Formats: sequence, structure tokens, C-alpha cells
Amino acid sequence: MVSSSRVRLRTNGQGHALDITDRVRQAVAGSGLQTGVVTVFVVGSTAAITTIEFEPGAIADLNALFDRLAPRDAPYEHHLRWGDDNGSSHVRAALLGPSLTVPVADAAPLLGTWQQIMLLEFDTRAREREVIVQVVGE
Amino acid sequence: MVSSSRVRLRTNGQGHALDITDRVRQAVAGSGLQTGVVTVFVVGSTAAITTIEFEPGAIADLNALFDRLAPRDAPYEHHLRWGDDNGSSHVRAALLGPSLTVPVADAAPLLGTWQQIMLLEFDTRAREREVIVQVVGE
Amino acid sequence: MVSSSRVRLRTNGQGHALDITDRVRQAVAGSGLQTGVVTVFVVGSTAAITTIEFEPGAIADLNALFDRLAPRDAPYEHHLRWGDDNGSSHVRAALLGPSLTVPVADAAPLLGTWQQIMLLEFDTRAREREVIVQVVGE
Repeated sequence: MVSSSRVRLRTNGQGHALDITDRVRQAVAGSGLQTGVVTVFVVGSTAAITTIEFEPGAIADLNALFDRLAPRDAPYEHHLRWGDDNGSSHVRAALLGPSLTVPVADAAPLLGTWQQIMLLEFDTRAREREVIVQVVGE
Repeated sequence: MVSSSRVRLRTNGQGHALDITDRVRQAVAGSGLQTGVVTVFVVGSTAAITTIEFEPGAIADLNALFDRLAPRDAPYEHHLRWGDDNGSSHVRAALLGPSLTVPVADAAPLLGTWQQIMLLEFDTRAREREVIVQVVGE
Repeated sequence: MVSSSRVRLRTNGQGHALDITDRVRQAVAGSGLQTGVVTVFVVGSTAAITTIEFEPGAIADLNALFDRLAPRDAPYEHHLRWGDDNGSSHVRAALLGPSLTVPVADAAPLLGTWQQIMLLEFDTRAREREVIVQVVGE
């Protein structure tokens, strides 16, 4: 009924995008479940999950939007609290969100051909990331 | 335990909003499930799903925001790759997201009175869209 | 298989952020379910749910972003329809979204240490809010 996997990833810092579609497909295929939903969730508050046509142009365009929305070098109140420099990371991650849920049929996520699942790193430094892939179904 | 429906829709291009609440209600009512969650997912990377008070003013306001965030006629790196003109579509869709999950009780989604489920088309041309409505529960 | 709780909250108007992590933890712990997913959903179209490092600086930074994206005092077509003053609220809520799904293991949501679940009020007046916490699993 429930299958849980953990995917560990290494990122290079703000704007680094990872295509995790195959990892999610493998987790779903290995779950033994045929139909249901898969939730892909990144642990932490400075990265996010969404879908995109995973090609460098679209990713650069999305990062350019986030650079306009929450520039890395702007002043942030978060910086005053911890002496951190990642206020832009927190704002971007809260806006895009840590979670994505995709329907599953025939033991595979029902994605479009040009629709990949992406982890987008927003932190200002390289990070090790843990992504939970939770399949609920039958 | 799991019920899956597919809803097919025709859109008119960027900014076209469709209220799909009744389609989701019908899918949930027809699922035979009383309680759980329903995931509404649009296949493809240039449309998105959210909730809104579905009236023309609020939809125009949301589209105006996206026109500011990612203007259709701005330069996009995605255009250089394929000769496409829908870089704005990809950026907007990745930001808003393709998936929405709503709790279900008494065989109905637990929405507010003024809260409808909307598919928002971001592509620059008319599209046929497939929305998956996946109910998981008992 | 499914456990449903309702959390009632009082907010102070636009920008008021509430950390609802403990309420979600209690609902999950009380569900009797060990593993699965928890969906946190705010009923209504002028508030939203996301995760954030819940400290005043990061919250102020996120609110500042929304103030730039959809200023409260800008003209909105929604205002023309109802005589409302909360066009900014609808736009912000549709963008951030009413729903969050988090994996559950060992009867607890799998959040990061610095990752809290937040309800963010966008309406221009104090509201009573209902949040549904739906756990699906085993």
C-alpha cells in the first residue's frame, strides 16, 4: 500500500537543476504498486521540486526569473538573524515548494513526454540533498 | 482504494482558464471512495493547476501578474533551442506547478464555496489537454 | 487507511504567518497510521500553505516579495466585481497554492529540522481559517 524510498543527491549551489525523473521512475517501478500516486519531497527549506521540460534553455529562463524575483545580493532580514547569505534561497524555495504529487498507472508516473521532475537547488552553497519518494496505492 | 479518471479539454492559448471543479467532483463521486485525497494533474509542461475564486476579474489579475513575471515577447533561451516561442509558457508552468491535491470526505473534495479548481493554459497556441484525476482512499 | 482532522485558526490579516507544524504532527501521531502521506489543505481562496524556516526574518522577506509581486493597493479587476479590496490576496494565494503533501514515516511527517509548515494569510482582514489534515497510509 505504501512504499518509501530515499534518493541522495549532491548539488552545486544556487540554480543547479537536477533531473530526478529516472530516480522517481525506478522507485515507482520497484514499489510493487501498480496504481496510485507518488509524492516527491525534498527535505529542507532551500530547495524545491517542480516539473519542466528539462533542457538548459528553459532552466536558464526559470533561474533568470528567480534572479529577478529574489536577487541573491539583495538585503534580506533573514541575513540579520543568522549571518547567513541565503535569504534569496528561502524566499525562492517557499514560493516554488518542496513537494510534487504525480498520478501512477501501470507502475509508472503519468508524466508528459517533455515533462521531467526537477530538483532545483536554491541554496548559495553546494549541498547534499535527500529526496523522499513516497508511493501510495495498490 | 484507487480510482483514476482522465479529463480531456481544449484550450485557446496563453491565459485561457478553465474551471474543472465539476469534472473533479464527478470523478470523485464516481470513484466509489468516500474519504481520502484527490490529485489533479495536468500532463505536459506548459499548463498548470491551482485553486482560485473563478471569476473573470481574479483570473485577469492572475494573468496580469504572469505577464509581468514572464512576458510573452521577452527573449528566452528556450527559444534558441527549438525555435519555439513559448519560453514564457515553460517558466510560468514550472512556477505554478502541474499538480494539486485536495482532501476528500463524503465522496466530495473539501473545497471552499469560492474556491474552484482551475487549469490555466500557458502555451502560446490552442492545445488539447489531458488532466488525470486520481482518487486514493477508502 | 485514511484519517482526517480539522484545525481551526484565527489570523490577523495580510502577511500573518502561522506555524502549524505541531498541529500537523499531532494529527499524524493521532491517526494511528505509521507510513504514507499527509496532505495539509487550507479551505478558501485567500490563504496558502508552504514550508519555510519559520523565523521572522524569512517570513518578512517572503512577504516583501509578495508585496512587490501583487501590491495591496494596486488596481485589481477583482475589485470591480464585488467592491472587494482583496485582489492582491487572490493573486498571491493562487500563486502559492492551498495544498502541501508531505511523506510520513514512523507516524511523523518527514520534514527537515529547519523546515516548518506555514499557513500564510493573504486576505486583507482577520479571518477564521479551517485547515484539513488528511493522512493516507497504513
